[in-house]
Amino acid sequence: MEGNMKVAVMLGIGKMGFTTRPIPQPKDDEVLVKLEYVGICGSDIHYYEHGAIGDYVVKPPFVLGHEPGGTVVEVGKNVRHLKVGDRVALEPGKTCGHCEACRTGNYNLCNDVIFFATPPVDGVFQEYVAHEADLCFKLPDNVDTMEGALIEPLAVGFHAANQGGAHIGQTAVVFGAGCIGLMTMMALKAEGVGRVYVVDVMDKRLEKARELGATVVINSKKENVLDRINALTDGRGVDLCIETSGQEICTRQAVDISRKGATIVFVGYPASGEETLPVSKILDKELTFKSVFRYRHIYPMAIEAVATGKVNVKGVVTNVFDFDDIQNAMDRSVNDKADIVKSVVKIS
Amino acid sequence: MEGNMKVAVMLGIGKMGFTTRPIPQPKDDEVLVKLEYVGICGSDIHYYEHGAIGDYVVKPPFVLGHEPGGTVVEVGKNVRHLKVGDRVALEPGKTCGHCEACRTGNYNLCNDVIFFATPPVDGVFQEYVAHEADLCFKLPDNVDTMEGALIEPLAVGFHAANQGGAHIGQTAVVFGAGCIGLMTMMALKAEGVGRVYVVDVMDKRLEKARELGATVVINSKKENVLDRINALTDGRGVDLCIETSGQEICTRQAVDISRKGATIVFVGYPASGEETLPVSKILDKELTFKSVFRYRHIYPMAIEAVATGKVNVKGVVTNVFDFDDIQNAMDRSVNDKADIVKSVVKIS
Amino acid sequence: MEGNMKVAVMLGIGKMGFTTRPIPQPKDDEVLVKLEYVGICGSDIHYYEHGAIGDYVVKPPFVLGHEPGGTVVEVGKNVRHLKVGDRVALEPGKTCGHCEACRTGNYNLCNDVIFFATPPVDGVFQEYVAHEADLCFKLPDNVDTMEGALIEPLAVGFHAANQGGAHIGQTAVVFGAGCIGLMTMMALKAEGVGRVYVVDVMDKRLEKARELGATVVINSKKENVLDRINALTDGRGVDLCIETSGQEICTRQAVDISRKGATIVFVGYPASGEETLPVSKILDKELTFKSVFRYRHIYPMAIEAVATGKVNVKGVVTNVFDFDDIQNAMDRSVNDKADIVKSVVKIS
Amino acid sequence: MEGNMKVAVMLGIGKMGFTTRPIPQPKDDEVLVKLEYVGICGSDIHYYEHGAIGDYVVKPPFVLGHEPGGTVVEVGKNVRHLKVGDRVALEPGKTCGHCEACRTGNYNLCNDVIFFATPPVDGVFQEYVAHEADLCFKLPDNVDTMEGALIEPLAVGFHAANQGGAHIGQTAVVFGAGCIGLMTMMALKAEGVGRVYVVDVMDKRLEKARELGATVVINSKKENVLDRINALTDGRGVDLCIETSGQEICTRQAVDISRKGATIVFVGYPASGEETLPVSKILDKELTFKSVFRYRHIYPMAIEAVATGKVNVKGVVTNVFDFDDIQNAMDRSVNDKADIVKSVVKIS
Repeated sequence: MEGNMKVAVMLGIGKMGFTTRPIPQPKDDEVLVKLEYVGICGSDIHYYEHGAIGDYVVKPPFVLGHEPGGTVVEVGKNVRHLKVGDRVALEPGKTCGHCEACRTGNYNLCNDVIFFATPPVDGVFQEYVAHEADLCFKLPDNVDTMEGALIEPLAVGFHAANQGGAHIGQTAVVFGAGCIGLMTMMALKAEGVGRVYVVDVMDKRLEKARELGATVVINSKKENVLDRINALTDGRGVDLCIETSGQEICTRQAVDISRKGATIVFVGYPASGEETLPVSKILDKELTFKSVFRYRHIYPMAIEAVATGKVNVKGVVTNVFDFDDIQNAMDRSVNDKADIVKSVVKIS
Repeated sequence: MEGNMKVAVMLGIGKMGFTTRPIPQPKDDEVLVKLEYVGICGSDIHYYEHGAIGDYVVKPPFVLGHEPGGTVVEVGKNVRHLKVGDRVALEPGKTCGHCEACRTGNYNLCNDVIFFATPPVDGVFQEYVAHEADLCFKLPDNVDTMEGALIEPLAVGFHAANQGGAHIGQTAVVFGAGCIGLMTMMALKAEGVGRVYVVDVMDKRLEKARELGATVVINSKKENVLDRINALTDGRGVDLCIETSGQEICTRQAVDISRKGATIVFVGYPASGEETLPVSKILDKELTFKSVFRYRHIYPMAIEAVATGKVNVKGVVTNVFDFDDIQNAMDRSVNDKADIVKSVVKIS
Repeated sequence: MEGNMKVAVMLGIGKMGFTTRPIPQPKDDEVLVKLEYVGICGSDIHYYEHGAIGDYVVKPPFVLGHEPGGTVVEVGKNVRHLKVGDRVALEPGKTCGHCEACRTGNYNLCNDVIFFATPPVDGVFQEYVAHEADLCFKLPDNVDTMEGALIEPLAVGFHAANQGGAHIGQTAVVFGAGCIGLMTMMALKAEGVGRVYVVDVMDKRLEKARELGATVVINSKKENVLDRINALTDGRGVDLCIETSGQEICTRQAVDISRKGATIVFVGYPASGEETLPVSKILDKELTFKSVFRYRHIYPMAIEAVATGKVNVKGVVTNVFDFDDIQNAMDRSVNDKADIVKSVVKIS
Repeated sequence: MEGNMKVAVMLGIGKMGFTTRPIPQPKDDEVLVKLEYVGICGSDIHYYEHGAIGDYVVKPPFVLGHEPGGTVVEVGKNVRHLKVGDRVALEPGKTCGHCEACRTGNYNLCNDVIFFATPPVDGVFQEYVAHEADLCFKLPDNVDTMEGALIEPLAVGFHAANQGGAHIGQTAVVFGAGCIGLMTMMALKAEGVGRVYVVDVMDKRLEKARELGATVVINSKKENVLDRINALTDGRGVDLCIETSGQEICTRQAVDISRKGATIVFVGYPASGEETLPVSKILDKELTFKSVFRYRHIYPMAIEAVATGKVNVKGVVTNVFDFDDIQNAMDRSVNDKADIVKSVVKIS
């Protein structure tokens, strides 16, 4: 497809702008997607606010956004499973296929991944993107492209649930009722977990968690988490904790509320990079810690969960911004963290 | 069996003595064992030096020792798998059999375990003990009762290796070359792991590790562990780390030397109970942490490993003390930690 | 509790009668349950029709029935988790607790199990039974005792789903839409499996499967199963098959419709004891076969699934017979297999 | 490298010949290997004897042989991990990297695999082959190229052991003492299995099994396998059976000697494609059947096992033939199955 497209770029910390770039040409194994919705993720906000995450430094102009949903408008000549008009969710990371991680199926651990919006790789706050067709997943008729954009954070939730061995019969606790915590809670329920308790400090977020299906919500500023969990479980403790808040206090609470032999899944990054943990307690309870780095082999099951009504991804969205309003979208995401759970940018 | 037996008791911190108690009568499901060797373990030393471990407080007179090997001298009337004259290794913990942990096979996590030398349950620094026959494992002809006593710490090593998913093809690192670290290293090799590197700060312990089969030994006071491991693995990192030293620095090194997706097994208790860990690195590498609380279903495989020459348990022993010399044995164990790797008390 | 109770006994092949026996006295670890509903299972029908299953031979008078639900009327003095008035589902098999199978958590494989209605152990077509309290599971307020009786066959369905590694994202096929096939189908859905196709030869049973939630039903007498599955899965094949019919033709179809690397679970016993299988195809597809012998650690999750509305166990019941009508109940179960999916006897 | 090379071709059933073809040019991701040894495998013999295996039909002239070891003589420009002069073992199957099987790490199940000597893909009975560098594994200094050629069948043995969950503490039985059975037995021992019993009908093969480390060998023509295993295991039965003979009688014996909950691994293809199995017994014992189709992710661990002396692959070889003698090599392999366990062709 000839022509130019509008691209939103980060020009510096706190500063967005627009530019024009040629519409990309899809290679033989790629498709060209007209983007309709792109979610705003915590990492986008962090780059926007700080200019870097660890060793990854933004060099403006840089395109943020890595949670895309859209429609296929052109297919490369080797592509067979997609056609023009198909609506798709895009899995952002293109991996090398050759390293030990890729060959053993753990492609999320590929050292050479090319991932949207992780510097120096541009993201997708733009009108079109060309992407490997194998990483574009067709959406069924009853799943729209906004839901398609939300598959990315839902995939993190499902991977967390899988790492934790989520299973019917268990009692699980999710720490953090932000976007990822809510997605995780819904993924746990979709996998059959009957009792999912959600812990947070903001009533607004806990209210949304309850709406979306949390069995019980607990405000840890207002009540003692250990006492509440003991009451809810008759002293047995829980089988699985998933920690999405990045707060050390939550990981410590997870250790306290876990029964012996339970599993705790790290998802949230602590701001300092470090957490002080009660290793002796962990040993006495013989706990297992798993961790989550993105996801692998999740998109199909996540799309199915949305299509069959098991997960209400749209329920997580609190704000939809027009593409032209992206400066405001990014600023509000930085400044209104209390009120905004999940923002999505409507590209077209 | 009628009569009295000699019992070594802890009379207070740093103070041992002897007393006489009746020889116990085995119940129908028990056997009476004449003890020949009992190992001295880190926990025995800790109780002797500090009078308590966490909530477990010694109330003198208290019998230490929980690593017993001996000969069956009497069998309860329901016992069929043992006979008088059989040499046995005793698994110290009698569990309830009814709780969820016991019924699901995770008996080491039973809350109501009765474990030798964990207050208020007396240990076995004495001439005889009556014990549940199911917890007494017959030793083959070529395994003696000193080796029988060493099955207990070897079981910890095997459980650590199993928790870590030890397998041929892996590269593993053991932190700590004390008794448990050495047992773990030998267990890893018995399970087929081809390359086991051992890290410690004492050359004497590293020399023993090398004698007992470590592929490479590393003195972390003299060289940079990460650099050495990078050189040994061509930058790939290791698949499995087992941390037996209880030192936070070792757990942090384990995170650094692990390849993505690797497993780290906690075995050693940190003195403060806590460790500060680089959770963001753990997430970026999607690491798994397992932990070890004693062992379960290990005694038969540990005995087999010794019987078939796969593991040289006696090689760990640096000191054998006579029963009458137990005050000296305990004092030396406290004061000569640099020179003593493993002490065993010869009861008879 | 003093007094006598009415007991239905099998007096010979095809012949039921009633007798009176004393109400049992619960031991210290037992409870006395007043039975309200007891399901009729395929094995009860088989003993009634043939007098034996393999080496298990009925010696009249013999009590059939092993799917009990009722109310606790007396508790032994060591029992703490149940009280008079609690409604319970009873897990039928009392195991030894000492053998390798029991100690490793695989208690369903205990050689010394005492199982209701497996000769020579009497079953529970009677007014009261005393049973180990650990094997009596309290029912929540919204689960009645008929549902309690149905937990037993539902447990077989859940164990089959677990053996098969059921998981959201999979496509599964259940062969056989009898009681066990229907329970299995509902268990798979409760565990998150999105697409469950059910195959049978009787439209009546397939209609019930559809009512109870099967995604698609296939009458293998009327259409080619392989063609249908290929169409439904775009040629990919299925991830999991559970074979409950005991028909060799179904196991062979399972091999044909499985994708490479899939799992097939044996549940149904073939009448001849044998099946001829295409081992070369199995090898070429690198399939896994699991099998199901009763269940283990399932009752709590099964009860939860019923309580939360995930599984409609009552939906499987086609006939409820009064206790006095038990001769008719057994005869109808033998003769009307086409019309009767599941019968339950209402004891009180 | 310019020039021509000698190639041995199958001209028809029972007929070999030689031809000349250009030395292949390695692509950027490939290396050119000068072949030194190529093993003769059962499938090569079957094609030579029958002209086909299932749907795979030989269209002469066809090159057999898929177990290659040799030296790198040229490297494609993208290749970094190999250099000229490196000795290598070649993994024969080039897979697509894009299908679900490849992406999830189960590349041996790729439908589009290009596998040496599976029609229409030529094998490697020739002087040189160009092959994907990622599929060429460098041999340590102490492993020669004949051992390199034997890595392929050893990989089947390791994959069988892994599928069976081989672990120290188990008792395992291998049915069949041909090349694959012997490799499997050695792989089980390398993975720590302490007791490996081997069953066959030929004393010559059992003698070799004993030489190579079988704990006990059993001639099933001379003694009753079930009685012998009962005696060896005190009636407990075995934990793992690996069936490499393709004989239904062996699979049936495996079911009989397995303890409850054991695993049986199918490796051998039955001549008729089918086996009649005692499914009711399988259910009563709740057995698991796994199967083996080639291998995945095994070459590094197999090479390590040979390099560290854990597995004596050369010990399996009974005959080495010169390249020029290949007609005789193939004829002897067909006609002397009783005397020949494993033949290798020395190419240069």
